[in-house]
Amino acid sequence: MDGKIIKKRISAVRARLKKERIDCLIVTKPANVTYTTGFSGDDSWVVITNRVVYLLTDSRYTEQAGDECRGCKIIERKGTMSQAAAKVIKQFNPKIAAAENSTTLAAFEALKKNIKRGLKTAANIIESVRRCKDEGEIAAITKTGKIAAKALASAMKDVKAGITENELAGEIDFEIRKLGAANSFDTIVAFGPNASRPHHRPGNSGLKKNDTILIDFGARYNGYCCDLTRCFAIGRPNSFYKEVYETVRQAQAAAIKTVKAGVEIKKVDAAARDVIKKHNLPVYGHGTGHGLGLEVHEEPGLSENSKGKLQAGEVITVEPGVYIPGKLGIRIEDDILVTTTGCKILTRNCPNQFTVAVP
Amino acid sequence: MDGKIIKKRISAVRARLKKERIDCLIVTKPANVTYTTGFSGDDSWVVITNRVVYLLTDSRYTEQAGDECRGCKIIERKGTMSQAAAKVIKQFNPKIAAAENSTTLAAFEALKKNIKRGLKTAANIIESVRRCKDEGEIAAITKTGKIAAKALASAMKDVKAGITENELAGEIDFEIRKLGAANSFDTIVAFGPNASRPHHRPGNSGLKKNDTILIDFGARYNGYCCDLTRCFAIGRPNSFYKEVYETVRQAQAAAIKTVKAGVEIKKVDAAARDVIKKHNLPVYGHGTGHGLGLEVHEEPGLSENSKGKLQAGEVITVEPGVYIPGKLGIRIEDDILVTTTGCKILTRNCPNQFTVAVP
Repeated sequence: MDGKIIKKRISAVRARLKKERIDCLIVTKPANVTYTTGFSGDDSWVVITNRVVYLLTDSRYTEQAGDECRGCKIIERKGTMSQAAAKVIKQFNPKIAAAENSTTLAAFEALKKNIKRGLKTAANIIESVRRCKDEGEIAAITKTGKIAAKALASAMKDVKAGITENELAGEIDFEIRKLGAANSFDTIVAFGPNASRPHHRPGNSGLKKNDTILIDFGARYNGYCCDLTRCFAIGRPNSFYKEVYETVRQAQAAAIKTVKAGVEIKKVDAAARDVIKKHNLPVYGHGTGHGLGLEVHEEPGLSENSKGKLQAGEVITVEPGVYIPGKLGIRIEDDILVTTTGCKILTRNCPNQFTVAVP
Repeated sequence: MDGKIIKKRISAVRARLKKERIDCLIVTKPANVTYTTGFSGDDSWVVITNRVVYLLTDSRYTEQAGDECRGCKIIERKGTMSQAAAKVIKQFNPKIAAAENSTTLAAFEALKKNIKRGLKTAANIIESVRRCKDEGEIAAITKTGKIAAKALASAMKDVKAGITENELAGEIDFEIRKLGAANSFDTIVAFGPNASRPHHRPGNSGLKKNDTILIDFGARYNGYCCDLTRCFAIGRPNSFYKEVYETVRQAQAAAIKTVKAGVEIKKVDAAARDVIKKHNLPVYGHGTGHGLGLEVHEEPGLSENSKGKLQAGEVITVEPGVYIPGKLGIRIEDDILVTTTGCKILTRNCPNQFTVAVP
């Protein structure tokens, strides 16, 4: 990881800490550890003071940490993580040390035993810095989007009547793996009316000759995630399915059209819902989208209750849907970079009904 | 899930709560939610009082919860999880309510806002009950072990020089998926000296004509995990590899021989290490094993520092290894049921060097 980028991130984190009068932050969330150090291993914490960034790891990772985290002081811990963190912090003797509020109570209680005074919790420090992506991050998300697109195109070649949801999900995952990536979450494959449940788990339903498929999936590559949903009709789709698909497509297009730095987030949400309402179709119960990056769900959430405005450099999903139990479920989801002049769709090349010849 | 089994589990949990003078437990760890209710969905909490078990879920899961959790009062929450939990708890008005210490600080702080008095944290309540498995759980772990064995046998058929670690890991995962199961953790495949790092991530190393493979993997089926490690030699393994393999095999056999309810856990650990020491090979830095069940790592841990004795009904891994950086890594891992008369190896039928014809 480029040392300059890490330095810039740490400066931004320190500015936030100063504002909140925290002298020392204990970082326990894996994505935040990676973000502030470049470290890609597990089971490690970071302690950020106003002078030093400490990476607390164990002997399994010391070598890797030395390669990946040039700007950090690497501490190979022998005892528990809390003991190691307390030791580093005592040395520095801050007035106020804070642990991220994603830390477990067990870890916090262990920290409190070792740090007698001035330990509090901190919310959203690094998350707020992570929200706007830098160039390298945007490139990474674009790359993982391309991998997902390629994997889906390969997997769809094998689709024929009789394949089960579970088998198709397995094919997609295998293709992602062969491209050197991993899943960013458990792949959802839903045939026909199963797609009306947004979080359907792939089961043993077999694909019929005339059927529909909803696929919600993503890849993770070099730490970064993408998140995509595509729908396909096999054989002869009925006219209602085609009509609803077109409405969802328009809803997504309407939302994407509003995306631009400075736009109120709830306006993006409303743009998609309005199209669906106008067509007298049921409005979806989930949000219209969410940020993504090192985690598949990050700030900002896009919903009716969202506060604040879009910022340049955010990468968000836009994913309206229509769900009619017993009948159908259709959702279209792309990953979008917010820019000062509008937006850029990072997943444009992912196959859909019109680019993949479905057998 | 059989209502009688859930009732028995809840009785055991209530006995523990009484002992710790907790009137009401807020269960937030997913495996503990499943264990105390039978619920297999996500994003749900349980509140256990001395009269009622509440499952707090949302509209996505209400139907599923109704099917799976007959003994629970199901609450479909509208607001946040903490609000829903506080509402249930206020109604009951306990002196002491406790949240599991695996809860995040953010969730605990939200709970504290809504529950003004008597909120504390609880450690190891449900975990201590989960430690000894019932018949259904043992059957589930045995079944997932069989799935893993079958998947490995299928994947090993495709092994030939040139395949990469990542491709082979993908093959194994795909076979697990085709059998209707999922991975219990990220599959480790390490060729040659890569195996000297116990947590090696499969990369793009290609298998040579004369080479060795270490595979550490597991399946999850109906919520239950298995965890297995197997080593294979391709072509003509050198005599040192064969010698070390035989030592590790003996170390594992020696440890398994000691397993029996009532035996001090550290004696099992020592039995394996002693064999490796006796052969003047380096002793591994990890524990000799760990419990497994709904989670792939559970109580008890098996190490030099382990306190206490094995109990009948525990399912543990036994996994000694020898690691020589730049040269080799060999580990053999099976899943073992502790009984009053000894033990039962639940993963006996998983292929190894001597049952799979390696090309």
